[in-house]
Amino acid sequence: MLLSMPSSASDTRERILHRGLDLLSEVGLSGVTLGLLAQEVDMSKSGLFAHFRSKDDVQIALLCHMADVANTKVVLPAMQVSPGLPRLKALVKNWFGWTTRAGLRGGCPVAAAMFELDDAKGEVRAKAVEMEAHWRGLLTQFVKESVERGHLRHDLDVDQFVWELCGIYLSHHTSSRFLRDLRSDARARKAFEALVHHARPMPKKTNRFLRGS
Amino acid sequence: MLLSMPSSASDTRERILHRGLDLLSEVGLSGVTLGLLAQEVDMSKSGLFAHFRSKDDVQIALLCHMADVANTKVVLPAMQVSPGLPRLKALVKNWFGWTTRAGLRGGCPVAAAMFELDDAKGEVRAKAVEMEAHWRGLLTQFVKESVERGHLRHDLDVDQFVWELCGIYLSHHTSSRFLRDLRSDARARKAFEALVHHARPMPKKTNRFLRGS
Repeated sequence: MLLSMPSSASDTRERILHRGLDLLSEVGLSGVTLGLLAQEVDMSKSGLFAHFRSKDDVQIALLCHMADVANTKVVLPAMQVSPGLPRLKALVKNWFGWTTRAGLRGGCPVAAAMFELDDAKGEVRAKAVEMEAHWRGLLTQFVKESVERGHLRHDLDVDQFVWELCGIYLSHHTSSRFLRDLRSDARARKAFEALVHHARPMPKKTNRFLRGS
Repeated sequence: MLLSMPSSASDTRERILHRGLDLLSEVGLSGVTLGLLAQEVDMSKSGLFAHFRSKDDVQIALLCHMADVANTKVVLPAMQVSPGLPRLKALVKNWFGWTTRAGLRGGCPVAAAMFELDDAKGEVRAKAVEMEAHWRGLLTQFVKESVERGHLRHDLDVDQFVWELCGIYLSHHTSSRFLRDLRSDARARKAFEALVHHARPMPKKTNRFLRGS
């Protein structure tokens, strides 16, 4: 597929996004220079400018393309699972290490952007903030559905749960990609199980014991 | 102090490291170009090369300088606190958001490097890996001391505890610096308290109950 000749400007743009996302996952936003991207897709820089107005425009397009890929690979399969805790668990399973399973050579571009652009300004940062908010919103929705179905306790601090879950994701990202620790998946699984365990409704038996004491 | 004229090559190097670390915390390793650093310290690029052999050499020197600053601001004050859980809590309190309290304009350079250099090769990455291992070793030592003193339970998975603690740090970094969420400190405190709470030794009363049941 990648070696076939593009039949239109739309195909060319698609090819740039596909290869550009792979590059982005490896080198981060600041690493995706127009020169390097042009080399990656075997085009001239001026050829690239026929598809994108500026470096910011390329970066935003790549982040949007990432969101599409993540939606297909991470979110949609989880939507096939019954709502509540089973769906949340399915989402987390698809989310952790998703870039490798999506065939990208590097890590999660948004996770990297949260450290790269923390002190930056501008449109690209705004796009990354919007994407993070969208993702956090999805996690929040799935956790709320778990509470509504009685899978997690009714007085759970949902925002705190999501905040801690994001920490587990980031620790998994650094331990698997930066430290290349083979125990990363097991550590993440154990951390997530503990987070869920402590958010479970109190068993009825214990409730009875407490009422009786 | 910063405006005084350097009296020797050593003073000049110190000034470059001081301003360079501030720049590094804001723009990350790839952002600290020799041109930008020269501008920051009001020197020519060739003047910089009198002090550093290469860009990698500058980056490694800046990371080493960061370790010195973090040691002074984060570790040494915690060493004044009694060993075990009080010392671990003091360290965590100094660690979260340490760059701001150290007067740096940006975030933690090693946290950023863990995402920036995850797919890289070379000496700078090796230095960042070494620093992360040193830091994780210190956290591990403090947690082990807490176990030895009976402040945390004897069968605690210490590596897992440290792994999850690093996740809380990373989530605090993104929520305070990238999302600029005013609740970041409170969220981190709550997450750390929960981590410690679940690692506490089981109360004797409960032990008796379980033995009797």
